[in-house]
Amino acid sequence: MTHPRQRVTLITLGVADLDRAGRFYAGWGWQPHAESQSGVTFYQMQGAALALFPLAELAKDQGRPGAPLGTGAVTLAQNCDGEAEVDAVFDQGLAAGASCLKRPEKVFWGGYSGYLADPDGHVWEIACNPFWPLSPEGALTLPDPG
Amino acid sequence: MTHPRQRVTLITLGVADLDRAGRFYAGWGWQPHAESQSGVTFYQMQGAALALFPLAELAKDQGRPGAPLGTGAVTLAQNCDGEAEVDAVFDQGLAAGASCLKRPEKVFWGGYSGYLADPDGHVWEIACNPFWPLSPEGALTLPDPG
Repeated sequence: MTHPRQRVTLITLGVADLDRAGRFYAGWGWQPHAESQSGVTFYQMQGAALALFPLAELAKDQGRPGAPLGTGAVTLAQNCDGEAEVDAVFDQGLAAGASCLKRPEKVFWGGYSGYLADPDGHVWEIACNPFWPLSPEGALTLPDPG
Repeated sequence: MTHPRQRVTLITLGVADLDRAGRFYAGWGWQPHAESQSGVTFYQMQGAALALFPLAELAKDQGRPGAPLGTGAVTLAQNCDGEAEVDAVFDQGLAAGASCLKRPEKVFWGGYSGYLADPDGHVWEIACNPFWPLSPEGALTLPDPG
């Protein structure tokens, strides 16, 4: 094993309707990658990719065709630079068709965070954490204990 | 917005028992980061972090306390360098207590892929894709169309 052991290189979101999901992410500012094909849509992220894939196909690929696949217990977070960026990203998500779960607010750990769900129920947290700075490329490195 | 628009900086997995989940990930070779606290466990990945967080706390944080949160419709993939590494990572996951959903096998898109579920039902795909090379740091960049 030549790579760091702890990694996620691809996040796949099972969706009921690939076109509807693609329209939502386009409206939220995501640009599909040329690797996308008729049955799957890919997005390049910082060091990893995101995929949209039909739920039934995903269940089959997981080796359990027909299984009901649930959402909500996984949260994908976008860390932002400050409260204004959190609000902007959040409101753009709502405008694109997301459901508001919790409007961004100051939270006990010292940051500012809100949650929305995409049209398939996938949960996104939009947050800023002043203790977790981002690199210019948007990479998050957990701080060393001071 | 100063960072790339398309990003996931933190993936949070809701778990029924934080100690049990931590033991599983430790057994699978993951090392917790010093940012971890009594109620949340963090792991540093390539440009992003993974968190384990109790399901009830996650539902509350999402603004819907008591909501049943489901798994399965999100797949987290670890891309590997070849079939041998896929098998090794997969078998180490099973040894640590994962459930086998589909043993790694050659798949139609030209790669090799298997699926397992962690003790809370979170689905991991362990795969190699010869068309998607990884950087030495384990970062995945989707190939430009040739």
